[in-house]
Amino acid sequence: MKERIRTSFEKQEFMTTLGAELVSIKEGEVRIDCQFDNRLRQQDGFFHAGVVTSIVDSACGYAALSMMPENARVLSVEFKVNLLRPATGNKIIAIGKVIKSGKTLSVCEGTVWDEKQEKIVAKMMATMICLV
Amino acid sequence: MKERIRTSFEKQEFMTTLGAELVSIKEGEVRIDCQFDNRLRQQDGFFHAGVVTSIVDSACGYAALSMMPENARVLSVEFKVNLLRPATGNKIIAIGKVIKSGKTLSVCEGTVWDEKQEKIVAKMMATMICLV
Amino acid sequence: MKERIRTSFEKQEFMTTLGAELVSIKEGEVRIDCQFDNRLRQQDGFFHAGVVTSIVDSACGYAALSMMPENARVLSVEFKVNLLRPATGNKIIAIGKVIKSGKTLSVCEGTVWDEKQEKIVAKMMATMICLV
Amino acid sequence: MKERIRTSFEKQEFMTTLGAELVSIKEGEVRIDCQFDNRLRQQDGFFHAGVVTSIVDSACGYAALSMMPENARVLSVEFKVNLLRPATGNKIIAIGKVIKSGKTLSVCEGTVWDEKQEKIVAKMMATMICLV
Repeated sequence: MKERIRTSFEKQEFMTTLGAELVSIKEGEVRIDCQFDNRLRQQDGFFHAGVVTSIVDSACGYAALSMMPENARVLSVEFKVNLLRPATGNKIIAIGKVIKSGKTLSVCEGTVWDEKQEKIVAKMMATMICLV
Repeated sequence: MKERIRTSFEKQEFMTTLGAELVSIKEGEVRIDCQFDNRLRQQDGFFHAGVVTSIVDSACGYAALSMMPENARVLSVEFKVNLLRPATGNKIIAIGKVIKSGKTLSVCEGTVWDEKQEKIVAKMMATMICLV
Repeated sequence: MKERIRTSFEKQEFMTTLGAELVSIKEGEVRIDCQFDNRLRQQDGFFHAGVVTSIVDSACGYAALSMMPENARVLSVEFKVNLLRPATGNKIIAIGKVIKSGKTLSVCEGTVWDEKQEKIVAKMMATMICLV
Repeated sequence: MKERIRTSFEKQEFMTTLGAELVSIKEGEVRIDCQFDNRLRQQDGFFHAGVVTSIVDSACGYAALSMMPENARVLSVEFKVNLLRPATGNKIIAIGKVIKSGKTLSVCEGTVWDEKQEKIVAKMMATMICLV
């Protein structure tokens, strides 16, 4: 299962573009980190909300995939993000967790933390679909 | 107003990283396009949902900013995205529109189209805050 | 199709509790109205956000059902509501429209209007699932 | 603070219409229960999604209000609900928690449980505004 997710992550060239790193994979929980780089800035110098969203979407998607059958693919149906604080600092940490794994749909909760995992930068609630 | 938005867009280095282009600015409506590039792929070869979200978030944010006072800054409070179809093709087109402009909060609706503007790839509903 | 939706609506006793009325059914579009009554108040005397949500959720669900096979049932997977203005006045009008009808999932957009259909009270974006 | 919330809850006549009960108030966390009644049914005999949403919206709103200044009022800006399971059984339990309390905006997370608090029926993520 981990191998399958690592392979898929490597195919997501956009994660490489962001400099995102797949840090850990457990059943139903995936962590992706992203180092700050000027290339990822919005107008005030913080991580762009799109970067925050991208890594937590991938973390949620792979968390869902970790509980799906071997031959399954996963796609995001929809997600909602609340941006709680400006994403400042050197790194952001996205953790995606499955809260309901269904045959067709899975519901995931994502949290984006600052580099010390002290403050929540953003929360995601997402629906993922299993394609076989 | 247009000048202010163009200047802010140029400061969003992440837009440059994506190869996104600020195509048009009207009061309450902004369009941002993005050409496909392998750097923006997810695992199946489509635009990553994070790219789709990033450009429509910026389009919605600038649409909101276009109706705010001269000295205002805009930040995304939250957004929700429904991904209707895989974002394939050579280009995606994001159009952000203000549906309610308030003193503090603005509500925007974003639509991401395929390159021919025939099919909707994604819809966003977003809340933006005016900081002065 | 209309008969099937009317029958289902009548089984939603909660719509009766709200005093909601199924006003029109077209393929992919359903309208439900609700008269103000003190029983529906929140603390400031307006329609409770839950009433606004309930009727537009039903309108979106039936809009989705109107495009599904004869034997299908519909359930709400998720929805997001932006409350644009206090829902004052004697009546609110909810219109649900399908923006993407898929085999399994449908995406709907709901709008809640004031009684004159001049001002938008709330917007919904919803995902509905077809059960057969 | 508790007195203020109890008084406001009593003014929400819609809560009485639903038969909802304000069970507990802590700083940043409010619980509201609702007994099943045929008046609250959707077409399959479960609690209508609108009922589920109404009580968790009120729970989130009052959780936010519990952390606001004495003279403040609270309004829902937007919320998103994922419906994880049909809301069956004799009772549903909604718990709203503040995850970020700001001067103007608060972000809340709501969970609706079955009567045994074993299974999650729905999750809400909501933005509340403080009016003074």
